Amino acid sequence: MAKLVSAEEVAKHNSRNDCWVIIHENVYDLTNFLPKHPGGINVILKQAGKDATAAFDPVHPISIIQQYLPPEMCLGRIDPATVTKTAEADSEQNRRRQVMEKRPNLDEMLNLFDFEAVASQILTKEAWAYYSSGADDEVTMRENHEAFRRIWLKPRVLIDVSKIDISTTILGHYSSFPLYITATALGKLGHPEGEVVLTRAAYTHKVIQMIPTLASCSLDEMVNARGEGQVQFYQLYANPDRNITERVVRAAEAKGCKALFITVDAPHLGRREKDMRLKYVEAPPDLQEEKDIRRDQGAAKAMNSFIDCRLKWADLEWFRSITSMPLVLKGIQTVEDAVMAAKLGMEGIVLSNHGGRQLDFARSAIEILPEVVQALKIEGLYDKIEIYIDGGIRRGTDIFKAIALGAKAVGIGRPMLYAMSAYGQPGVERALQLLKDELELTMALAGVTSIRECGPQYLDIRDLYNHGSVPTDYLTKSVYDKPKPMKGKL
Amino acid sequence: MAKLVSAEEVAKHNSRNDCWVIIHENVYDLTNFLPKHPGGINVILKQAGKDATAAFDPVHPISIIQQYLPPEMCLGRIDPATVTKTAEADSEQNRRRQVMEKRPNLDEMLNLFDFEAVASQILTKEAWAYYSSGADDEVTMRENHEAFRRIWLKPRVLIDVSKIDISTTILGHYSSFPLYITATALGKLGHPEGEVVLTRAAYTHKVIQMIPTLASCSLDEMVNARGEGQVQFYQLYANPDRNITERVVRAAEAKGCKALFITVDAPHLGRREKDMRLKYVEAPPDLQEEKDIRRDQGAAKAMNSFIDCRLKWADLEWFRSITSMPLVLKGIQTVEDAVMAAKLGMEGIVLSNHGGRQLDFARSAIEILPEVVQALKIEGLYDKIEIYIDGGIRRGTDIFKAIALGAKAVGIGRPMLYAMSAYGQPGVERALQLLKDELELTMALAGVTSIRECGPQYLDIRDLYNHGSVPTDYLTKSVYDKPKPMKGKL
Amino acid sequence: MAKLVSAEEVAKHNSRNDCWVIIHENVYDLTNFLPKHPGGINVILKQAGKDATAAFDPVHPISIIQQYLPPEMCLGRIDPATVTKTAEADSEQNRRRQVMEKRPNLDEMLNLFDFEAVASQILTKEAWAYYSSGADDEVTMRENHEAFRRIWLKPRVLIDVSKIDISTTILGHYSSFPLYITATALGKLGHPEGEVVLTRAAYTHKVIQMIPTLASCSLDEMVNARGEGQVQFYQLYANPDRNITERVVRAAEAKGCKALFITVDAPHLGRREKDMRLKYVEAPPDLQEEKDIRRDQGAAKAMNSFIDCRLKWADLEWFRSITSMPLVLKGIQTVEDAVMAAKLGMEGIVLSNHGGRQLDFARSAIEILPEVVQALKIEGLYDKIEIYIDGGIRRGTDIFKAIALGAKAVGIGRPMLYAMSAYGQPGVERALQLLKDELELTMALAGVTSIRECGPQYLDIRDLYNHGSVPTDYLTKSVYDKPKPMKGKL
Amino acid sequence: MAKLVSAEEVAKHNSRNDCWVIIHENVYDLTNFLPKHPGGINVILKQAGKDATAAFDPVHPISIIQQYLPPEMCLGRIDPATVTKTAEADSEQNRRRQVMEKRPNLDEMLNLFDFEAVASQILTKEAWAYYSSGADDEVTMRENHEAFRRIWLKPRVLIDVSKIDISTTILGHYSSFPLYITATALGKLGHPEGEVVLTRAAYTHKVIQMIPTLASCSLDEMVNARGEGQVQFYQLYANPDRNITERVVRAAEAKGCKALFITVDAPHLGRREKDMRLKYVEAPPDLQEEKDIRRDQGAAKAMNSFIDCRLKWADLEWFRSITSMPLVLKGIQTVEDAVMAAKLGMEGIVLSNHGGRQLDFARSAIEILPEVVQALKIEGLYDKIEIYIDGGIRRGTDIFKAIALGAKAVGIGRPMLYAMSAYGQPGVERALQLLKDELELTMALAGVTSIRECGPQYLDIRDLYNHGSVPTDYLTKSVYDKPKPMKGKL
Repeated sequence: MAKLVSAEEVAKHNSRNDCWVIIHENVYDLTNFLPKHPGGINVILKQAGKDATAAFDPVHPISIIQQYLPPEMCLGRIDPATVTKTAEADSEQNRRRQVMEKRPNLDEMLNLFDFEAVASQILTKEAWAYYSSGADDEVTMRENHEAFRRIWLKPRVLIDVSKIDISTTILGHYSSFPLYITATALGKLGHPEGEVVLTRAAYTHKVIQMIPTLASCSLDEMVNARGEGQVQFYQLYANPDRNITERVVRAAEAKGCKALFITVDAPHLGRREKDMRLKYVEAPPDLQEEKDIRRDQGAAKAMNSFIDCRLKWADLEWFRSITSMPLVLKGIQTVEDAVMAAKLGMEGIVLSNHGGRQLDFARSAIEILPEVVQALKIEGLYDKIEIYIDGGIRRGTDIFKAIALGAKAVGIGRPMLYAMSAYGQPGVERALQLLKDELELTMALAGVTSIRECGPQYLDIRDLYNHGSVPTDYLTKSVYDKPKPMKGKL
Repeated sequence: MAKLVSAEEVAKHNSRNDCWVIIHENVYDLTNFLPKHPGGINVILKQAGKDATAAFDPVHPISIIQQYLPPEMCLGRIDPATVTKTAEADSEQNRRRQVMEKRPNLDEMLNLFDFEAVASQILTKEAWAYYSSGADDEVTMRENHEAFRRIWLKPRVLIDVSKIDISTTILGHYSSFPLYITATALGKLGHPEGEVVLTRAAYTHKVIQMIPTLASCSLDEMVNARGEGQVQFYQLYANPDRNITERVVRAAEAKGCKALFITVDAPHLGRREKDMRLKYVEAPPDLQEEKDIRRDQGAAKAMNSFIDCRLKWADLEWFRSITSMPLVLKGIQTVEDAVMAAKLGMEGIVLSNHGGRQLDFARSAIEILPEVVQALKIEGLYDKIEIYIDGGIRRGTDIFKAIALGAKAVGIGRPMLYAMSAYGQPGVERALQLLKDELELTMALAGVTSIRECGPQYLDIRDLYNHGSVPTDYLTKSVYDKPKPMKGKL
Repeated sequence: MAKLVSAEEVAKHNSRNDCWVIIHENVYDLTNFLPKHPGGINVILKQAGKDATAAFDPVHPISIIQQYLPPEMCLGRIDPATVTKTAEADSEQNRRRQVMEKRPNLDEMLNLFDFEAVASQILTKEAWAYYSSGADDEVTMRENHEAFRRIWLKPRVLIDVSKIDISTTILGHYSSFPLYITATALGKLGHPEGEVVLTRAAYTHKVIQMIPTLASCSLDEMVNARGEGQVQFYQLYANPDRNITERVVRAAEAKGCKALFITVDAPHLGRREKDMRLKYVEAPPDLQEEKDIRRDQGAAKAMNSFIDCRLKWADLEWFRSITSMPLVLKGIQTVEDAVMAAKLGMEGIVLSNHGGRQLDFARSAIEILPEVVQALKIEGLYDKIEIYIDGGIRRGTDIFKAIALGAKAVGIGRPMLYAMSAYGQPGVERALQLLKDELELTMALAGVTSIRECGPQYLDIRDLYNHGSVPTDYLTKSVYDKPKPMKGKL
Repeated sequence: MAKLVSAEEVAKHNSRNDCWVIIHENVYDLTNFLPKHPGGINVILKQAGKDATAAFDPVHPISIIQQYLPPEMCLGRIDPATVTKTAEADSEQNRRRQVMEKRPNLDEMLNLFDFEAVASQILTKEAWAYYSSGADDEVTMRENHEAFRRIWLKPRVLIDVSKIDISTTILGHYSSFPLYITATALGKLGHPEGEVVLTRAAYTHKVIQMIPTLASCSLDEMVNARGEGQVQFYQLYANPDRNITERVVRAAEAKGCKALFITVDAPHLGRREKDMRLKYVEAPPDLQEEKDIRRDQGAAKAMNSFIDCRLKWADLEWFRSITSMPLVLKGIQTVEDAVMAAKLGMEGIVLSNHGGRQLDFARSAIEILPEVVQALKIEGLYDKIEIYIDGGIRRGTDIFKAIALGAKAVGIGRPMLYAMSAYGQPGVERALQLLKDELELTMALAGVTSIRECGPQYLDIRDLYNHGSVPTDYLTKSVYDKPKPMKGKL
């Protein structure tokens, strides 16, 4: 039986040279692990001498401790009798409990924006900042949805629309409508159970879930949460260590994942300033002198040690050699790269700018889509590859527009996190139901009875390239000192 | 003589398995009727044990009870001595009376927006939500008026404008100016007398009224309100039951309606979220477990049982066989369908997106108009069919622009409801007079002396297709967390 | 010596059938004149039994009483001992005196907007509404200035700009810079002395003033205020009575006016709703029953009896026959009419939409200018006629743009009224000086040393026709009920 | 030893005919110097009888006194015992000290807007107005950054981006990234040490600084602050006196400046109204009568005596004759002038509109850049000359866009002043570091590994010429009286 350690004892070991923390009731001496922590020294030091569970959980599957920490680092179990809850944690828990109690009823949620509004009140500041932020001025993040608003519909009338079939297939797998839940990181920031909640809701609705490399839940947890016949894909951040990458890919395939989505738009992580502002912590005294530590870039820079920024086209052959899963490149943003992917025999591409979290001023997927489709048709490659898009999808009309322009399906990320954070699994199910209802109604009102018939003849995209109003530049605007005319001195 | 029932007795029957209501002083046992109610169970249950008259009236002509309820469901008359007014109804009545008293004088109303502003204060929340709402983000609803603002005028000078003739004909019938009052539902939400108010005002101004299928008043009431020589058209939602449809059409013709406007843009009703938010009621306890009831979609889904979503082009011949009224398709939204309608010999089409209440991102009628006119001219069909448009008309310049682009007349709906709700018949008359004055002045200042001379040479439409500014996306905007620069911590 | 009448006596005669008023200390019985008053019965009745001087003055030259009222209508002089100032008049005078005292120093005025801001506080509500209002939604009024903002400059460098010559000629007359003060009505609303203030300031700056038909001052007053060698033009609203028109034109020429600007864009006056709202007065009890009186359109409709709405191209010959002054058409708005004017030998045209006060959605003069210049050049008529523009000029860069596009000069109206109302003659002089300074600096920084060199090579007008953002539709916006997402119920 | 003068004595000499001031503890009799002061009489009179040091320092290098004032004007030293600090100065100092104490930590600054926000609180009103103001309505000033937002990126994926080289050369000199600190005037308004702070930060980051003619520091001070091997350029306002110009240029070369940037866009200084509003001082009584003094244009007009407004293309040869430094023209704004400069053999041009401080509605440099590059390529001159741009650069993506369009480097001005004013040298270093990080990340995410590879294929500039939304016209907007609909009178 493990030795008991008192909270008072732990509290004494709170510096860089002597750093203990509590995680899930175990006490660890992380002094020697500090420099090896991929997330940086500072985030651990912030917890030195304290219970780090709340900070640990969203960022790591619980199994990671066994994998990375030698057993001797565990000094014993915390003596529960010595633990006193902090006032801060209490107050945040109180706030959340109160907001949860006063939530609207779930069936009052009428659209995806409702979930976002409720989630923005329920989430911790840190979680909201992480989920909602985009790169730099967030122009691309907002453009993603805005671009859909430059596409108008051409509804046909006097069609029998008593039966509307919105089902489709993705890489040959049935999907109840042309949408999959895309990979998003750190689900436990929003819900204590994390991404398995999405797994279950996806099963309810017969849509496909993409398992993220950076999930809070482990691969096993997510795979085990599968329902009968449920399909999952795997999203991969290629690790700089080719052996690790191979192990991960083989595991995903072994566990029954049906496709490998390789993220190609994040050789480095983008600058998400809302997130950076909240991550900022004043260095403890004993770190003040260390000039080389960029305290405010912890997370992003840290990720880089997990992601291979050397990945290149030539490496795709190697992936083919280690897996028989279909390969899809996630994060294609130009016609040139789309054609290249098709020529190299990829089974699919996701036109995506990573939800506007990577390179600000990258164009929206929906804007690129018609160019990509046209180029692939000219090359005779359009029917050799499936095209998906993600970014900014919030309405059934958005899905309709994407499909009409030639996408096979759309991915949706943030809204799933918001629905999950606000209402758990029923929330995600309701959000998916709303999208289905909206899509079905859009098709009925446009006079389209099945996904297969949905084509560009139902759209007016003449305005798509007219960026008459670029999303507002709030930073510029808020520091700008406006001219004022002289008034009377009254 | 009918049996008297006490209010106390009625109040006891207030559950799903035992549901009585009072309507126009009669007491009905609706327990068995509940599952058959086209508007859904829930809206009745909300009234169980109470006086449902106020909820019943705007939605049904009074005659409907005789048509659909077997006599035995009527248990007797309510005993007036036992009735006590509810505080809620009193307070709403008080509010309305106060607002009515403080209304501006009618001749202070200078434009249609004034009526909308006053009506927004006078109407109940429910009525305002029903009248003012549009589909989804209401982009199309707002675009309808906005599109007119992208058309500029080219006024000619030094023309004798002492006499301006704004009269025209619609399907051969005289109209004092090129406008008709289009069909809108549930007039009694805004005014206790309902649509007959519009009938009388239309007579004053010698304009044509279109009688709606979903009027609060019955066909008979509206027909009987006609003045000497007054012309009415009939708007039809085709019923899935062809026999009902035939009966309705024949009745309209028999009662002297001069044209049949078949609505083709509403095989299902659109999602109007403002309306849905107000319609939402928490299910009573004994309904909580019924999963399959979509409480928030009551009205829209219910309508569907009234509207034939199988209606198709081939059915038009059948309409020709049951009526000799001219046929007009209301809700055409593409060049293709306009040409089809003309080829099939329709007497007219209404370019319309149903006031932005059906499919969001449908284009505005005024934007489609020049394309349709051009296509019909190319096909040699332009003089075989009359084209009307509705949606967004608020100013005399709007009417002028529509006529100049080739419309025979415009339909106007919501502003009539607002004027009626705020000031009754004199309000509607004033609103029509303002539009006439504005149109006449526009023509004088543009140098055009009669409707027949009004053509595209008076317009600059180069901007019509330039959607530089799509109507604001308020939902997105209100949930968006704007970037803020770091300030001093003062 | 005139009989003295007491204020108490006057006060008794305050109805439609017995209506006395005091004007400049004389008492008049206007009972019989009421129906003949061109401004309508109602505006006089509002003053019945009271001192009407303050209402009378801005609208009429004082000499009009001798011209139109038979001497017997004058009942005598008011007995000053019986007069008590009204509290209302006192309070308005107090307000104005206080604002005047707290005005910024004149040399703190840095641009024309400053004058507008100060004037908006100093003017009475009525005067502000009359001066500042435009037609309908005021889209054209705002577009007038906005259109200049779609023209960008191409400045040249390394030019000797030590001497900049901004002088020019207008119809052969010297002007210190290419601007004239255009005709605006009712100057005494803003300044007790009225338009002669502008005459004097124009003299100081050697610019030309256009005398308005509807001036508060009489022609004689304005002519007599001329300085040595000062040039004035005459703006004409043609009277329906050709004899009156002839008398007026001959008088203008006899008094030395150097050109006749015939207004052609106002056969009827536009709907200016801000003005109409303030003009509205509840009818006195004894008028309530008169249905045919449009109380809210008094001024505009009244004007119509002064303006010939039958004026046509063929009449221009007649003008030539009665005057040797050069003829200029003010209010041309299309290429077609500009070419017509040139072909008929007009000496000039003013591209103008009447400051946005006539037909809303008329295009701006600056936008039409390049089309007109091109058309005239093609016809070989460009050097046969001078082109002026007015509307929206507020900055030196605006003047530069107009000249570069081919205008000979610009007219400026409202800003002169604002400067006059806020600071009198020194205000107008300062405003003109600011425009001169701005124009001179613009030319120096653009590398242009004289007006003659100023041409389209200095502009980028590619955006001129891009109405990406039509001026805001404030009425629509203020009545629109924005969608709101569901929030937590906290 | 200098005579001691008491503060009481100085205070007596406070009029135009007897004007003493204290500067750096010396007392000067400036009565005779007043009319010769290039900055105008008034700014000195404002200090008459007082300590003028705070006003003197930002505008003059300290050495200027020896150069321009004859020794006999110095009456002695102020007796420190007689000096009492003014309450005003104390209160401003207190305010600044408090703001400085509450500044965020430097490493909380995440982007250049953060520095601007903090600086706006720390700077005196005068300094903020001088730094932040632009010409007229500041349309060009805002357009400068806005134009970058009309350029979208086309990121390529699956490129090895483990090594990114952002270094380049400017006129053959190494620069750690393609940016130089451009010349800005009056550095001591923001920081007591003035421009040498920028010199030191430039050294830290191995970027080039351009020394301004109008620096608060003297040339010697800035040159002496150089680090080993540090490169500086010299920015020249050509003096109307050719001898002075020659002396200045030869001094710059002698002191080791490596290029001469001749400013060509400021023959006169622009109208910067924010600055003018703050500069305004009521004339002291004894100046009231002097009509010819434009009190509100002091600074700008005064500068003109320092700047040769006769400078022309032909003079460039003369510059070549007096220096062997490469010649660069700063302020080119058209294709024509760019080609001319290249034909005359200039080594470089800066496309610039002087930060929007000169001619409002001048186009942005980034918009002109592609036109200039194309024209130079057609003439075969593109590789004979280096092109730089300045104006509106705030983000790494902005730099990337400029380089991709063919600029060799960008200049940055105001953000350096803001960083310096808020945090001194570490602030400037942090600001430069942020730009470097942003540029490096932009390149990695765009798939570009070195500056040399950066070309137009990475951009979508179709929107660059689409000025759908011209920067807001705040003056117009703030004086505009918006139409309001009639509401109920509640």
